[in-house]
Amino acid sequence: MSGAMAGGDDFEARCRESFGRQEIMRTFGAELTVVKPGHAEIEMAFNPALTQQTGYMHAGVAATIADNAGGYAAFTLMPPDSEVLAVEFKINYLAPGTGERLRAVARCVKCGRTLGINEIDVFAVTGDEQQLIAKMQQTVIRVDKKPELPGA
Amino acid sequence: MSGAMAGGDDFEARCRESFGRQEIMRTFGAELTVVKPGHAEIEMAFNPALTQQTGYMHAGVAATIADNAGGYAAFTLMPPDSEVLAVEFKINYLAPGTGERLRAVARCVKCGRTLGINEIDVFAVTGDEQQLIAKMQQTVIRVDKKPELPGA
Amino acid sequence: MSGAMAGGDDFEARCRESFGRQEIMRTFGAELTVVKPGHAEIEMAFNPALTQQTGYMHAGVAATIADNAGGYAAFTLMPPDSEVLAVEFKINYLAPGTGERLRAVARCVKCGRTLGINEIDVFAVTGDEQQLIAKMQQTVIRVDKKPELPGA
Amino acid sequence: MSGAMAGGDDFEARCRESFGRQEIMRTFGAELTVVKPGHAEIEMAFNPALTQQTGYMHAGVAATIADNAGGYAAFTLMPPDSEVLAVEFKINYLAPGTGERLRAVARCVKCGRTLGINEIDVFAVTGDEQQLIAKMQQTVIRVDKKPELPGA
Repeated sequence: MSGAMAGGDDFEARCRESFGRQEIMRTFGAELTVVKPGHAEIEMAFNPALTQQTGYMHAGVAATIADNAGGYAAFTLMPPDSEVLAVEFKINYLAPGTGERLRAVARCVKCGRTLGINEIDVFAVTGDEQQLIAKMQQTVIRVDKKPELPGA
Repeated sequence: MSGAMAGGDDFEARCRESFGRQEIMRTFGAELTVVKPGHAEIEMAFNPALTQQTGYMHAGVAATIADNAGGYAAFTLMPPDSEVLAVEFKINYLAPGTGERLRAVARCVKCGRTLGINEIDVFAVTGDEQQLIAKMQQTVIRVDKKPELPGA
Repeated sequence: MSGAMAGGDDFEARCRESFGRQEIMRTFGAELTVVKPGHAEIEMAFNPALTQQTGYMHAGVAATIADNAGGYAAFTLMPPDSEVLAVEFKINYLAPGTGERLRAVARCVKCGRTLGINEIDVFAVTGDEQQLIAKMQQTVIRVDKKPELPGA
Repeated sequence: MSGAMAGGDDFEARCRESFGRQEIMRTFGAELTVVKPGHAEIEMAFNPALTQQTGYMHAGVAATIADNAGGYAAFTLMPPDSEVLAVEFKINYLAPGTGERLRAVARCVKCGRTLGINEIDVFAVTGDEQQLIAKMQQTVIRVDKKPELPGA
C-alpha cells in the first residue's frame, strides 16, 4: 500500500529489492529506514571497521550512504524497469562522523525523464539528538534495467 | 630518504603512519602504493563485499579511496604535526567500477597554508590496462595534530 | 537597527558597503534585496545583455548572483574587519533562466571561524510566481580585511 | 578544413555560430580563441565593469567563461543539430582574478551519447606568463536543437 504510485508501481518494494542487492550496505550494517515518494533515509550504527585515522567514521562512509539515499529518493519517482546510477555528487563536511549512528536523509529536488537532482543531509545521531555532519548535492541518471543482470 | 623534505620531514613515513590508523582501508583491502611530494596513489582489489545493486563496486568505494588519496597528496606538503581533513569534494562517474583492481591517483593542484586543492583520477585496472572511471576535485584543510587523539 | 548584532556590528551596513563596491552587480543590474543573519537575497531583472545562445540568461549569471548571495549570507555572521572570498561552489541547473527576474536566496548552513558553508537557491520570477532554476552548495573563507585595498 | 569531422560536420563553424549568439560573451568582451576536437579556449581582457568588492574579476566571470569553454569542448564532439546545456559544474578558486586577461582552457574528459564531462582550467594571463586561478569540473547534456529558436 504505502509503496504504490510514485513510479506507477510499488516503488517501496522496488527500492528495497534493489537495496537488498547491495553487498556494501550489508558490510556497512546500513538499513533503508524510510522510503516515500521523492524521499529516502538510510541509517547505520557507528562502525569501528570503517574509521579514519583519528577514530571517526571516514568521510567516504557518509558519502556512500548519502549517495545511496539520494539514488533511492529519485528511484521512487522513476518508472518500473528503471535502474538509477550516480552521475556525480558534491559533499561538504561540517563536523566529524561521531555519534551512535549515522543517518542520511535524501530529498529529490527534481526528477526529470533522464536526470534526477537530489539533496542529502547526513546526521550523527546520539539518542534523540542529531547533528548535521555533511551535506550533499547529487545528480543521478535513469537507465533501462537490463533483463538479467550478471550477479544480480 | 625518499620521503624526506616535502613537508620538512619524512613525509612518506608520516603518510603511511596515518594511513595505517585507518580501519576502513584495512576493511576495504586498500594499500597506499605511491607517496611522492604532492602525489599519492591507493589501490585495492575488486571487493565483492563492497558492491552495489548491479554487481559493480559501489560509487562510494571509488569516492572513499579518491578522497583518501587526495588527502595524502596534500598531506605530503604540509608541515609535521599537521592533520588533514576533507572540507568537501565533487566526483563524476564515467564508467562502472569493474576490473580486477581500483587505483586512485591524486595530485595536489595547490597547497596553501590552510587549504589544499587536489584532483584525483580513479581507474579500473585489469592486467596492464586501466580505464578512467571517476574524477574528483577536492578541498582539504590543514589542522594542528592533537598531541593525543582519543582512540588513535 | 535591523543590521546590528550578527557579526557584532551593523552587519547589514557592512554587507551593503561591500556589495556597493562590486562593479559587476551594477553591470548586471542586481540589488541586494534582503540581508538577515545568515541569510541574503539578490535580485536582478532579466538582462538581454547577459543571454546565452538560445536567448535565456546564461548559466554564469545565476552562478554569479548565487555565489554573491552565499558570500553575504556568511558575511553577516563574520566579525567586522573580515573579507569573504569564494573557496569553491557547485551548482546544478534545473530549468532555463527565463522569467522577468532572477532571485538568489542564500542560507548559511554553517559558519565557523575560518570557513562558511552555504546553500543557495536561484529562482526565475514572473509576477508572483517563482520557479527554482538552480541550486548551489558553496564554501567560503574568511580573511582579514586589508586596511587599504587598492581600488577599494 | 580545420573544423571538419569531430561531430561529423564543420564543428568549428558550429561552435562559432553558437558562441556568436551569446550576448553575454559580447558584454564580457570574450572571444572563442581555440576550437579543436574535445578542446576549446575562451579569452577576455580584464574588464573593470565585472569586478568584485576588492577590485579583482568576480568569481562568477571565471565561472562563466569556464562553463562556456567546457560546453564548447563537448559540443565539438556532438552530432550536428545538437544543443549543449550545462547540467552542473563545480569550481575551485586558487588565486585572485588579476592580470591583463583571463583564459579558460577546456578539455572534454568523456563525451557519451547524452552526457559530457569536462575539466576546465582558468588562468590569469599577463604578457607571456599565466597563473592558474580556478579549476572546474563540469557535466553537460546534449539535447536536440530546436528548428527555430525564439530570439536565435
